Amino acid sequence: MDPIILAYIAGFLDGDGSIFFQLVKRKGYIWGYQIRCSVAFYQKTEHADILEWLKSLFNRGYIRHRKTGISDYTIVEPEEVKNILLSLKPYVRLKHEQIELGIEILKLSKQVINASDFLKTCQMVDRFKNLNYSRKRKITSEDVKELLKRHNHLTPVETDPERVRVEVEKI
Amino acid sequence: MDPIILAYIAGFLDGDGSIFFQLVKRKGYIWGYQIRCSVAFYQKTEHADILEWLKSLFNRGYIRHRKTGISDYTIVEPEEVKNILLSLKPYVRLKHEQIELGIEILKLSKQVINASDFLKTCQMVDRFKNLNYSRKRKITSEDVKELLKRHNHLTPVETDPERVRVEVEKI
Repeated sequence: MDPIILAYIAGFLDGDGSIFFQLVKRKGYIWGYQIRCSVAFYQKTEHADILEWLKSLFNRGYIRHRKTGISDYTIVEPEEVKNILLSLKPYVRLKHEQIELGIEILKLSKQVINASDFLKTCQMVDRFKNLNYSRKRKITSEDVKELLKRHNHLTPVETDPERVRVEVEKI
Repeated sequence: MDPIILAYIAGFLDGDGSIFFQLVKRKGYIWGYQIRCSVAFYQKTEHADILEWLKSLFNRGYIRHRKTGISDYTIVEPEEVKNILLSLKPYVRLKHEQIELGIEILKLSKQVINASDFLKTCQMVDRFKNLNYSRKRKITSEDVKELLKRHNHLTPVETDPERVRVEVEKI
């Protein structure tokens, strides 16, 4: 993508966008939690055109118009979030820590082969709490740890690689 | 300035900045009102570095840290505001109407030679009310018109060109 466009989007994201990672409890997930990542852009619904324009560039995600008069464009697909973070990285000036940590989490998520790896990735998600200081995070890696222990996942256990592959795609 | 930097600033301004024009009552001003223009960038005080960076680029304006935890960097010098608007114009995607109207107002302000010219410029300032729809404007061109009429400025009167020159510099 044109560097001028990427620099503009980086400024727009720094000005009023957000990057965040959350731990979400999910039945059917091998470690009981999903690492959910989001890149979101906000704008008054009256000017939601700019969100449509962003969506036309990234070809992923969804736009919501809230009753408050604010719309958002949010991308949650891990591969696409990673691509967006990688392409904006050279241009952002405020959210560089979030971008670097985000890319690292997304890379590690794909390499998880046991509960301990998963927990380490969740601990990196905790660090987002400090970067996005205004955001209250309900679930931390401590909750994940507790569940993993309860299910005896944190004792060294051989994991079915096929199951892990499917799981990683779900994250 | 580097187009990449300008594109970033345009995105930052579109995301969470503002351009506004106000009519301010001023004793000692030939037409009784000042046309005040501002370009402002906002950020949490914790990240006020980015405002310092912007100030280092524009070399004008001032930074204020508010008790709310929000800081702003505001430029009000008409020539500098005009230069900023002109340089960001090719890159903005949301505030292009404000930028075009702003440049026009700033150009006309310098050409005011009588009360009628001044009033026309004030009427253009009124149009900002619609562009920055969320902002309540207290003084409109109607107030200016009333004062100009009361002082008989709106009847065709020869104006001292030297006085006008000084006045235009003050605007």
